[in-house]
Amino acid sequence: MSTVNESFPVKSTRRCEMIEITSQIADIVSRSGIGNGTCTVYCGHTTAAVTVNENADPSVTHDILITLGELIPKNHRSYQHAEGNSDAHVKSSLVGCSEHVLVKNGNLLLGTWQGIYFCEFDGPRNRNVSVQIRS
Amino acid sequence: MSTVNESFPVKSTRRCEMIEITSQIADIVSRSGIGNGTCTVYCGHTTAAVTVNENADPSVTHDILITLGELIPKNHRSYQHAEGNSDAHVKSSLVGCSEHVLVKNGNLLLGTWQGIYFCEFDGPRNRNVSVQIRS
Amino acid sequence: MSTVNESFPVKSTRRCEMIEITSQIADIVSRSGIGNGTCTVYCGHTTAAVTVNENADPSVTHDILITLGELIPKNHRSYQHAEGNSDAHVKSSLVGCSEHVLVKNGNLLLGTWQGIYFCEFDGPRNRNVSVQIRS
Repeated sequence: MSTVNESFPVKSTRRCEMIEITSQIADIVSRSGIGNGTCTVYCGHTTAAVTVNENADPSVTHDILITLGELIPKNHRSYQHAEGNSDAHVKSSLVGCSEHVLVKNGNLLLGTWQGIYFCEFDGPRNRNVSVQIRS
Repeated sequence: MSTVNESFPVKSTRRCEMIEITSQIADIVSRSGIGNGTCTVYCGHTTAAVTVNENADPSVTHDILITLGELIPKNHRSYQHAEGNSDAHVKSSLVGCSEHVLVKNGNLLLGTWQGIYFCEFDGPRNRNVSVQIRS
Repeated sequence: MSTVNESFPVKSTRRCEMIEITSQIADIVSRSGIGNGTCTVYCGHTTAAVTVNENADPSVTHDILITLGELIPKNHRSYQHAEGNSDAHVKSSLVGCSEHVLVKNGNLLLGTWQGIYFCEFDGPRNRNVSVQIRS
């Protein structure tokens, strides 16, 4: 049994943005030397999230961000939080701050079209992603 | 410490459908011989998801699918993705492609009314669910 | 390798409420004696959820609950479930019934502003939260 912890920075450049982080995580899996186990990707921010979705056609992430933005508007008469980013907190809890991908034969067991994304909902900011691989 | 990986097929027959997969997963837990640990259920598809919800009254899954369908319509003037399934990608990231259930004394530690569901958002299709049990 | 399972009660006093449970979980981590690993927080209820979000300004949880309540109304002409809590089931699947936080040097690896919340969507009720810490 073995556990490897690493983290890496992510820099967002827009308010809302899905940034693919699959290759950074695949590198950590590879360096870990772990063949079979679980990979947990954790985001320690309350206005961001982590998700898995299609990485073949960039219009998919465009449509996800557009839809979330229409469902959860930036400004709303009922918001009490004074920082103007209540929408980002809601999106964070709906998408979730962690993802888990299985590791098999030293590789992330992602589906054919799946990539791992850091979701920025209140950027641009300097963010950090934690990764734990466990055999 | 022991890890067991299995997968099984799921065949959806409608565009949107919640298919209960609790018994298949309980069988894998049973076959694994693992008494205490974690069970990760992972869906490698970007237009589907996995969730835990009530399995006593089928009207619950009906109401979940109806509500998601009204929140996230199939057609929207802002969608750029040409395959006509942007709504399914959004639902996948909101519901999430994995679930984790604790295993205790050789059984899934589900609540009284909880079942595990594969959520199809762009069927009918032949799908696959991966399961990892870890002691 | 070591696994510790515990659970504790949560009593909600309103229909919808986010109740911070970080300190109870930190205590379980501390008592477990586990230095590095994963902490899974699991809610065995189908009208409640677990999430991680900001615990500095209470207006954040207010705004999350308000927004979810507007997105997913309590009453809807299409609901078939007769218990009048279909909204709570939908929220449960969107927010999710489990969370995972990494454990490092004997502490929960939460971000600066992050707390762990039990989300009640159909209270007031007596609830229960399961926690598993694994090294």
